[in-house]
Amino acid sequence: MQTSHRRQLANAIRALAMDAVQKANSGHPGMPMGMADIAEVLWNDHLKHNPGNPLWSDRDRFVVSNGHGSMLLYSLLHLTGYPLKIEDLQKFRQLGSHTAGHPEHDSHLGIETTTGPLGQGLANAVGMALAEKHLASEFNRPGHDIVDHRTWVFLGDGCLMEGVSHEACSLAGTLGLGKLIAFYDDNGISIDGEVHGWFTDDTPKRFEAYGWHVVPNVDGHDPAAIEKAIAESVAQADKPSLICCKTIIGWGSPNKQGTEATHGAALGADEVAATRKNLGWEYEPFVIPEEIRNGWDAKAQGAKREGEWQQRFNSYKSKFPELAAEYERRYAGELPSSWRDVVTKYVADVAKESKPLATRQSSQASLNAYGPGLPELLGGSADLTGSNNTNRKDSRSITGTDASGNYIHYGVREFGMSAIMNGMALHGGLIPYGGTFLVFSDYARNAMRMSALMKQRVIYVMTHDSIGLGEDGPTHQPVEHLPSLRIIPNMTVWRPCDSTETALAWADSIERRNGPSTLALTRQALPPQSRTDQQIANIRRGGYVLKDSEGTPEVILIATGSEVAVAVEAAGLLQQNGKRVRVVSMPSTNVFDAQDEAYREQVLPRGVEVRVAIEAAATDTWYRYVGMRGAIIGMTTFGASGVAKDLFKHFGFTADNVVRTVQKLLQ
Amino acid sequence: MQTSHRRQLANAIRALAMDAVQKANSGHPGMPMGMADIAEVLWNDHLKHNPGNPLWSDRDRFVVSNGHGSMLLYSLLHLTGYPLKIEDLQKFRQLGSHTAGHPEHDSHLGIETTTGPLGQGLANAVGMALAEKHLASEFNRPGHDIVDHRTWVFLGDGCLMEGVSHEACSLAGTLGLGKLIAFYDDNGISIDGEVHGWFTDDTPKRFEAYGWHVVPNVDGHDPAAIEKAIAESVAQADKPSLICCKTIIGWGSPNKQGTEATHGAALGADEVAATRKNLGWEYEPFVIPEEIRNGWDAKAQGAKREGEWQQRFNSYKSKFPELAAEYERRYAGELPSSWRDVVTKYVADVAKESKPLATRQSSQASLNAYGPGLPELLGGSADLTGSNNTNRKDSRSITGTDASGNYIHYGVREFGMSAIMNGMALHGGLIPYGGTFLVFSDYARNAMRMSALMKQRVIYVMTHDSIGLGEDGPTHQPVEHLPSLRIIPNMTVWRPCDSTETALAWADSIERRNGPSTLALTRQALPPQSRTDQQIANIRRGGYVLKDSEGTPEVILIATGSEVAVAVEAAGLLQQNGKRVRVVSMPSTNVFDAQDEAYREQVLPRGVEVRVAIEAAATDTWYRYVGMRGAIIGMTTFGASGVAKDLFKHFGFTADNVVRTVQKLLQ
Repeated sequence: MQTSHRRQLANAIRALAMDAVQKANSGHPGMPMGMADIAEVLWNDHLKHNPGNPLWSDRDRFVVSNGHGSMLLYSLLHLTGYPLKIEDLQKFRQLGSHTAGHPEHDSHLGIETTTGPLGQGLANAVGMALAEKHLASEFNRPGHDIVDHRTWVFLGDGCLMEGVSHEACSLAGTLGLGKLIAFYDDNGISIDGEVHGWFTDDTPKRFEAYGWHVVPNVDGHDPAAIEKAIAESVAQADKPSLICCKTIIGWGSPNKQGTEATHGAALGADEVAATRKNLGWEYEPFVIPEEIRNGWDAKAQGAKREGEWQQRFNSYKSKFPELAAEYERRYAGELPSSWRDVVTKYVADVAKESKPLATRQSSQASLNAYGPGLPELLGGSADLTGSNNTNRKDSRSITGTDASGNYIHYGVREFGMSAIMNGMALHGGLIPYGGTFLVFSDYARNAMRMSALMKQRVIYVMTHDSIGLGEDGPTHQPVEHLPSLRIIPNMTVWRPCDSTETALAWADSIERRNGPSTLALTRQALPPQSRTDQQIANIRRGGYVLKDSEGTPEVILIATGSEVAVAVEAAGLLQQNGKRVRVVSMPSTNVFDAQDEAYREQVLPRGVEVRVAIEAAATDTWYRYVGMRGAIIGMTTFGASGVAKDLFKHFGFTADNVVRTVQKLLQ
Repeated sequence: MQTSHRRQLANAIRALAMDAVQKANSGHPGMPMGMADIAEVLWNDHLKHNPGNPLWSDRDRFVVSNGHGSMLLYSLLHLTGYPLKIEDLQKFRQLGSHTAGHPEHDSHLGIETTTGPLGQGLANAVGMALAEKHLASEFNRPGHDIVDHRTWVFLGDGCLMEGVSHEACSLAGTLGLGKLIAFYDDNGISIDGEVHGWFTDDTPKRFEAYGWHVVPNVDGHDPAAIEKAIAESVAQADKPSLICCKTIIGWGSPNKQGTEATHGAALGADEVAATRKNLGWEYEPFVIPEEIRNGWDAKAQGAKREGEWQQRFNSYKSKFPELAAEYERRYAGELPSSWRDVVTKYVADVAKESKPLATRQSSQASLNAYGPGLPELLGGSADLTGSNNTNRKDSRSITGTDASGNYIHYGVREFGMSAIMNGMALHGGLIPYGGTFLVFSDYARNAMRMSALMKQRVIYVMTHDSIGLGEDGPTHQPVEHLPSLRIIPNMTVWRPCDSTETALAWADSIERRNGPSTLALTRQALPPQSRTDQQIANIRRGGYVLKDSEGTPEVILIATGSEVAVAVEAAGLLQQNGKRVRVVSMPSTNVFDAQDEAYREQVLPRGVEVRVAIEAAATDTWYRYVGMRGAIIGMTTFGASGVAKDLFKHFGFTADNVVRTVQKLLQ
């Protein structure tokens, strides 16, 4: 074949991808080889970025939703001048390298998000484009477009089959995210083989049904066709675009291209050699000739583009100094200087309240206290606003024609919401929170995991947190969800017992910069507990002594959320019988576990072995705190449909049952 | 308004729904009042069923995917003559009643599936329709259509927004499920209000893109229009149908209809009275006049229809006695009489093998041993067939034009697959199993929960069960998943350590009639362990002594799956140092926990407190077995991308580390 300059540039990606996979003897060469021509056009002619500063806030975002094609991204980053060296590519998929099997978010390397779990990169991209649109309407001023960038996303059949693609793309259409442009790698192949046996969607029609602009039937190996499709899409201000590219998976591999054999395994030494020959690529593995390297190098142009933006920003700054300072604060992820005072004052006020309140309502009150001073706090719910109490007095809905609001109606799309929130957090400038019922964390679960893996500040507001929700029954009553979320590494779960704990759980979640938080909140009213200032301060330590005995306790009751009041009542009854009882409120086991041993020992002294944990959730993780000699009052079955107080009695969450359980242990 | 007879019949549903919700002061009147006219036409003119025998195998299936509208279903079941009494309706949403907040699967009452978690009822319906098509092609003979029924499903905006609707409906289109007919309650309202702010899909176009037959713009309050749409849809043999019904939520409520106020709360006494007047419904709450009751009663016609079918079946039986016997066995959910012998022989063979094998391969070998004698074992994978090893030598793919195969390529649709499997299990006659990577159980999680809640025999084949999968990295490496699945009530998780344990895990999963099982299987090879016959028998008890010391052990090592070999190696090293060490293999904590106390004490004697659990997963649930004085070698962070053996060393899963840990405890 005749090899144009563009094709040679693209072949550099193909060579790096097949060589790195071959060296690792593990990985996915098919996608990078199939999408190389598209990537070449996009990165060399359109992508606004500066390899010298991957943190430039107004860069375009680029997402590889079909993340198994990670070598495409690593090749692009390396070739254009990001700090990803050829040695890094040679260590593809090795422990400790910068080139993991699937891209892992690293803002210093230009890796915008972690992908691999299919469909979620696309949803992250929706979140990034939504963040851009929102921040543009917040910060831009006439003649001063300091927020003005696009989000580009590559995706495959797998992303399109996943349900989350439906949720995210449907909402993207409704919200008119015109700066989102997606490239569909329509290669007709998935792991099981040719997709026509299990994927026969008319994808252009599907996306038109979502209100997208669709460019069908683009030859993904023809730079001119790709150019034309991009130009058309860039011209669409009000609709996201899907460019459907017909491609050949593993393009260039003479014996394997177009088949699933190129998808997820090294081509093999012989086929790599044959591909070299077929491509006219005469260089050794990992060797990129000077001319090709120069063709890709984007450092100079990147510096120039960022420089232009910096000039615009300087002029904005001189005209709108406060806005510019706010922009800088927000993108730095720092809270306003008034923040600590706001929290201190609010918590002091709340601590005085005496009215029983559902913690979902306490949560709303916290939002009303904290929200007005935190414009980055972008709320929403998966169609349960009135139940999750996620709206604030100052909430204004974001719509397709006005993105300046601060509240998103995600619709009944828990997974999409969560992955979109990840995208917004990754974009920067925002702290997203979103609500659903705790039981439906199941639907969102892998996106919550991704928040944790990517260390993103995303806040999950999960109400209706136990059988206490009552009549909606077992389909809506979480049982295993609290422990299941607590054991996701780097997830912080809070289950507050009253308004004071809720206020501090919110404060901690907002302040936490290196990971997500989940707030598990009740539907039913809970009485406020009284506390000393020291006890209030200890809430931040995840677990603390709420009620204590004179002298060393002989019994410790540990409870969370709605069961704390049950424990306190039981402690009162036991004390009347002369027992020395301590009550530990444990709003966050995750935070408590992270305290130093001395503090933990102080709260739960090793010597006291008569311990009862009380929580209306699966019991399995409580043995850690009560040992094999303690007891746990929890849920070992699903719940049931009924009035909450009947259910609490039926399942044993009463002071009497706690007392009986303690008495049995003391025998 | 003028009140036709049909309208009066429909109004009986409206009255029962609003009165039951009012009495409970909890529930969702809007949907039943909005869909009553559609339900009236469907149930009185089309649904093939027999209230006198809800178990009739060839009945039509009816699913309320918008399950919050449970009072619609309860009203229909009551009015047509199922054993659901008016007293049951009066106890709506009370503890212990048959009328839970959301419908709970009860085959004796005619409740085909548990719904409420949106979108899944629709996916269950896809599974039921697929089961029908498959069983028809398996059992029917020319002139003998003994399997010939439809699946009807009601759904709302919420179901359509959920991603699982995309997964299931896309596949339903590909597979040409012509006997599936769905009614979309297009009322323009969801919980947050009018849906146009968050749901602007062109739904007819979307479903046409899936290859469905769509009837748009049907007036859902006009029986003639509904009749016409049903007739059109019934005539479509090769495509599933979506009938888009424009409806008014809460139809009949003069002041609240058409608003979200009717969705999820009682109308209030005044509005109930006003609605009565508006509907011309002059009867007391829960009173149905004789004439209306007669109009609904379907017992006689149901008995007649089942009688006709029974005659057909009798003639089939006389012509094809073996097929008929097989049909009866399959629908009874009983295994073939040869089953136990097949298992015994296979396990005896496997126990002799000495070659290391990945348990995903052991699983495939088990399938090859068990599958040919179990035609009900219907396999599949979410596009990971070659990785999950879910195919068998006798696998034949089900396609859009031939449903006679025994293997489903679900595409990259983990949630859809799982909810479809629930539908197939509910339908009867099949034992579905399906594969994906363990980490992507997250995507499927709520459907797995529903399998457990509905006590369905569904088998989840989850391979790549730890960091042992290697280079694909932390996005693909499960950490929290094993414990998270074990704590779903009624889920049985198996993590076998070699081919023998795998063979018995499969046998147990196939035999388990009252709930789902998950098999967690390795990508990497594991050495076979040697066992006595008694030890082999004990595998079925979930945990057992695999290696023991002379006399009472001073140390117990507990391990599962790939870590059993590490424990055995460590035990050898410790024994060389004169320690008395026991190794407990614990392939299923769920099954072990269900054993009697004497057995559990025998395996894990209370007196031995030096215990170390070893499992490459989150540690939190292991304290139950090692207490606060033991130690756990597990994962407390996410994994990493690298070669498996490097990762095992890095994260401490080595015999040396186990030895060090034991020595520390013994100090």
